Amino acid sequence: MIVVLKADTSPEEVQAVKDKIKENGFTPHEIQGVERKVIGAVGDEHFKDHLMEVLDSMPGVEDVIPILKPYKLAGREIKNANSVIECDGFAIGGDRLALIAGPCSVESHDQMMATASSVKHAGANMLRGGAFKPRTSPYSFQGLEEEGLKLLKEAKESTGLPIVTEVMNPGDVELVARYADVLQVGARNVQNFSLLKELGKVSKPVLLKRGMMTTIKEFLMSAEYILSEGNKDVILCERGIRTFETATRNTLDIACVPVLKRETHLPVVIDPSHATGHWDLVEPMARAAVAAGADGLMIEVHPDPVNAFSDGPQSLKPSKFVRLVENIRPFVQLMGRTL
Amino acid sequence: MIVVLKADTSPEEVQAVKDKIKENGFTPHEIQGVERKVIGAVGDEHFKDHLMEVLDSMPGVEDVIPILKPYKLAGREIKNANSVIECDGFAIGGDRLALIAGPCSVESHDQMMATASSVKHAGANMLRGGAFKPRTSPYSFQGLEEEGLKLLKEAKESTGLPIVTEVMNPGDVELVARYADVLQVGARNVQNFSLLKELGKVSKPVLLKRGMMTTIKEFLMSAEYILSEGNKDVILCERGIRTFETATRNTLDIACVPVLKRETHLPVVIDPSHATGHWDLVEPMARAAVAAGADGLMIEVHPDPVNAFSDGPQSLKPSKFVRLVENIRPFVQLMGRTL
Amino acid sequence: MIVVLKADTSPEEVQAVKDKIKENGFTPHEIQGVERKVIGAVGDEHFKDHLMEVLDSMPGVEDVIPILKPYKLAGREIKNANSVIECDGFAIGGDRLALIAGPCSVESHDQMMATASSVKHAGANMLRGGAFKPRTSPYSFQGLEEEGLKLLKEAKESTGLPIVTEVMNPGDVELVARYADVLQVGARNVQNFSLLKELGKVSKPVLLKRGMMTTIKEFLMSAEYILSEGNKDVILCERGIRTFETATRNTLDIACVPVLKRETHLPVVIDPSHATGHWDLVEPMARAAVAAGADGLMIEVHPDPVNAFSDGPQSLKPSKFVRLVENIRPFVQLMGRTL
Amino acid sequence: MIVVLKADTSPEEVQAVKDKIKENGFTPHEIQGVERKVIGAVGDEHFKDHLMEVLDSMPGVEDVIPILKPYKLAGREIKNANSVIECDGFAIGGDRLALIAGPCSVESHDQMMATASSVKHAGANMLRGGAFKPRTSPYSFQGLEEEGLKLLKEAKESTGLPIVTEVMNPGDVELVARYADVLQVGARNVQNFSLLKELGKVSKPVLLKRGMMTTIKEFLMSAEYILSEGNKDVILCERGIRTFETATRNTLDIACVPVLKRETHLPVVIDPSHATGHWDLVEPMARAAVAAGADGLMIEVHPDPVNAFSDGPQSLKPSKFVRLVENIRPFVQLMGRTL
Repeated sequence: MIVVLKADTSPEEVQAVKDKIKENGFTPHEIQGVERKVIGAVGDEHFKDHLMEVLDSMPGVEDVIPILKPYKLAGREIKNANSVIECDGFAIGGDRLALIAGPCSVESHDQMMATASSVKHAGANMLRGGAFKPRTSPYSFQGLEEEGLKLLKEAKESTGLPIVTEVMNPGDVELVARYADVLQVGARNVQNFSLLKELGKVSKPVLLKRGMMTTIKEFLMSAEYILSEGNKDVILCERGIRTFETATRNTLDIACVPVLKRETHLPVVIDPSHATGHWDLVEPMARAAVAAGADGLMIEVHPDPVNAFSDGPQSLKPSKFVRLVENIRPFVQLMGRTL
Repeated sequence: MIVVLKADTSPEEVQAVKDKIKENGFTPHEIQGVERKVIGAVGDEHFKDHLMEVLDSMPGVEDVIPILKPYKLAGREIKNANSVIECDGFAIGGDRLALIAGPCSVESHDQMMATASSVKHAGANMLRGGAFKPRTSPYSFQGLEEEGLKLLKEAKESTGLPIVTEVMNPGDVELVARYADVLQVGARNVQNFSLLKELGKVSKPVLLKRGMMTTIKEFLMSAEYILSEGNKDVILCERGIRTFETATRNTLDIACVPVLKRETHLPVVIDPSHATGHWDLVEPMARAAVAAGADGLMIEVHPDPVNAFSDGPQSLKPSKFVRLVENIRPFVQLMGRTL
Repeated sequence: MIVVLKADTSPEEVQAVKDKIKENGFTPHEIQGVERKVIGAVGDEHFKDHLMEVLDSMPGVEDVIPILKPYKLAGREIKNANSVIECDGFAIGGDRLALIAGPCSVESHDQMMATASSVKHAGANMLRGGAFKPRTSPYSFQGLEEEGLKLLKEAKESTGLPIVTEVMNPGDVELVARYADVLQVGARNVQNFSLLKELGKVSKPVLLKRGMMTTIKEFLMSAEYILSEGNKDVILCERGIRTFETATRNTLDIACVPVLKRETHLPVVIDPSHATGHWDLVEPMARAAVAAGADGLMIEVHPDPVNAFSDGPQSLKPSKFVRLVENIRPFVQLMGRTL
Repeated sequence: MIVVLKADTSPEEVQAVKDKIKENGFTPHEIQGVERKVIGAVGDEHFKDHLMEVLDSMPGVEDVIPILKPYKLAGREIKNANSVIECDGFAIGGDRLALIAGPCSVESHDQMMATASSVKHAGANMLRGGAFKPRTSPYSFQGLEEEGLKLLKEAKESTGLPIVTEVMNPGDVELVARYADVLQVGARNVQNFSLLKELGKVSKPVLLKRGMMTTIKEFLMSAEYILSEGNKDVILCERGIRTFETATRNTLDIACVPVLKRETHLPVVIDPSHATGHWDLVEPMARAAVAAGADGLMIEVHPDPVNAFSDGPQSLKPSKFVRLVENIRPFVQLMGRTL
């Protein structure tokens, strides 16, 4: 890290900074600039983010600038090859584009079986559906909970599609892991560190959604929480960030795809349904995501969007999903992948 | 709610919308505008946010606009008088300004006792300190956990100051509630609905921090989660939101004080330490918060900020905290309150 | 528009609101809701945004909600067919994808001729280059001004490519229009209404860049300024918005492509160079833009990016631009267009 | 500046970076870290922001980090004492709080005289009013132009209050400067560099409003444009930034007051009317601004807000302005100032 000193720093203050650097096992290198002195502190920053705060609190210090990225296990430097993550029969991050489809909420046996069957026939290779629902209002439908997990399991048995479903409470991780093939962390829980730690201990892949106001650095640090507990199977999912623009529900940060592919070996999935909030924007954003190099798509499909318990406005009818799959297929092939 | 129809909506589509409104127990009122038809749907919106999504999913509908605020128990309309919340000896929201001070993390017996004693003498009326710490990096100090809670309890016994401390995991609520007088929800957990529901069932006040990405509406909906489970004692705390500006750690949304005071009966506390991230900005922001009408301040104080385990750069030394208290006192009096 | 009244509004206040609505040539329609009364005001909102403010200022009024979009000439309702804009030999918005390439700044005769020739051979169909440069620092290179315009003209003569170049000062519009085929408004001037009005009076197309802080609604209102003065040839260009994310220079709002295509008949161009700020992100974002349905791309190319006077880090070398064109060509074809 | 090299940079690339640094008159200092090599480039960065781009474009370079602030004349290092700016009879930045009040738009002789007289009696020491109005819609009232300037002049003659008024077009600077005592740059023009340069040549003070998405650094760079042309009299005005929050028109960045006071010697004024957009939030934000250390307030007052041509919802009636002045007076005194 680089310590920038104030213009009027005293020699004693400079010495104290250098002593503190050494005391933490780092080596100080002083550079005298035209208007400022800076001190480079050489050492392994990964496990020393605390030293940055310490130096930043010292008299005479104007700024402390990190050199290394704060994540380690998530980074390309420790593992350059792309991670390909096995999800009970489908591998995300490899030659095939992941196409994860299904309803926002699991609502009933009939709704779940109908959707599972139709997305399977359209070409989806994984099934999504929420049994535990994080809703802004306490008066909204909160999910069928274990009953919903059972319906997902049944849908899997009939279609063979692996199941992705959300877990919200660290206390439910074991329960959800009994039914799900991939455990999803929702955007609002991206920095729910108790949950992340718990997920680091299970032996199933985790699909981690980026929060509405999570930087790419913080997103990778949240992945690092799971990785550092021992679970190597993390799938990243961008679902739109919050900005000043209100024409769409969120703003799809499409550039995060190549940025993440450069920074990390973990696969990157895009959720154009939540990113836009409108079903008619889902297909163009799905094409853009594929063209940008995403490893997968996560799309909300409902047999009867008007009567969906949640997220109806952004859900595709099965017939529209069929068309979407046909329309993105040539783009997937241009990117050297298959569906 | 108001349903705006598209310019080219067919009579059948209009009829379907009106039928759906009636089916949900609402009454439709049609207004034919110059370029658009709109339908007012009259009914109790509080428990019907789902109807908005339903209508928004229907063919021919361009937009659905809510009229009522989505929160009910948190709103002034159901309870106009300010809530005054008893916190084992100190009441927040009444005549006295809450001055909650203490270290970011509980680090040791000596650190905690020294800080508690010094903030008490300076004029603080509540004590803060984290035993469970939400940290961006898994490699950072994560808190002393139950050991920290015990030290907080000891500090309370020696100073008489009620304790505010964070709980992150729904599974820890019972444990933390055994030691704390006020349970804090951190900014990253403001939409951790599993945690909020659990906190709705305890009989101790909750200090709910606004998230970096949380609108005022969503903030009140998170309070509504706690209130709707039966716990009426919620204290709101603004600690800065995330914006494009990087000169400060977050952007203190000072105008949320009068906006919240207009919308809700719940007390509003400002945390200028997290909002700014720099100790030298804490005092001017504390003055501004008092002048804006806040019911309290939450301020990080550490006997030795350079060696703090966390948040050193934004922590005040005890001597600076003494001066802050003296400097804000006349502002508190101008606002008709005492310290 | 819809006027939402406060819960405790008096009959006199209601009457005053209705009178004010009538006084402005609108017709009031009252709806009595469960907790609130709302009044629909029927009339042509386009030229009446002032009425919204008037009503919003009246006692007893809680909120005023517009129903119609504030733009008229820019909207699909007044002109449903896509506008195809002639730019002295190349038409934007039609069957061919616009590929506007060139250096950030015009720097010298050799740099300009070399770039023009190489982008022409790679497949560009228009040439960009700045003679007047808006720079954050007054100490940065500010452009060659008229000398630069002459070099652009010369580059056009030798390659046949129409010229796009920026104008910053209303007083320079006439000068720039003598040389340029398309006049560009930079992101920082998107709400420079003096400049927009002046450009509404010229007979050359205007390429209007969205500002870092401009909503899609405001963007279309800025286009409306130009259209309402009589110039029908406006090309919209998204170049990234400002958000909290700093991994890229700006955040490319890719979803604005289908949103704009739904709202307006004007062509939409994407600038992936400014949107990302890194040359290695330009190609994936160019592919995504094409796949999302953009009518064109605007890309910075420089023969020697390291020695560019501006924007070197986001400029492509000619050889990389050749590869980009080859790589996007099949995507362009999939979208039913040619290069 | 600090150049961070990639992990796998070749010795030739390192040498090329060092050569480029020397070629630009800087001195390179190499530091070999654990995972990265960094090179400090020592020289006067103020006039060398281009070198950052050059280095950032070179192969092997991962990042270039500035050490010095990009502004020079605006900074405290070149001039530590607060600038006190004479505005024809009232000095901003000294012992008295600037209280700039008046209507959003100059509308008529009667409106202007009535407002001027009432704000004068209430305690205002400067008069505001717009003759050239930047409006989002081309169909909104655009101002009385020179006729408005004449009315402002007349209002000044009758009250003695110096006049602050906006100029939008570089071509109008001379005209506006003939009537105004202080020339205002609106938020949308904060990076209208043609206008800023023109204002750098006049001999009247400039009140520069921060844009909705302008960082504090960029804001000071815009001030630097004016200062570097020779005009030393720049007054900074914060009027709210754009964020995701929609409960207020903008988000008042109150912490910018102490941040700007630390960075610059220029006076800082707060506009709580535009920052909030609601008249009932103006007084609490005015108190907060004074308590935060602002040098002045800019407040919209209109004799009949309901019938104001613009900004009615955020304008105070004269009687409410009288009360505001009385209520902020003791806060002003606590800050060691007079009104």
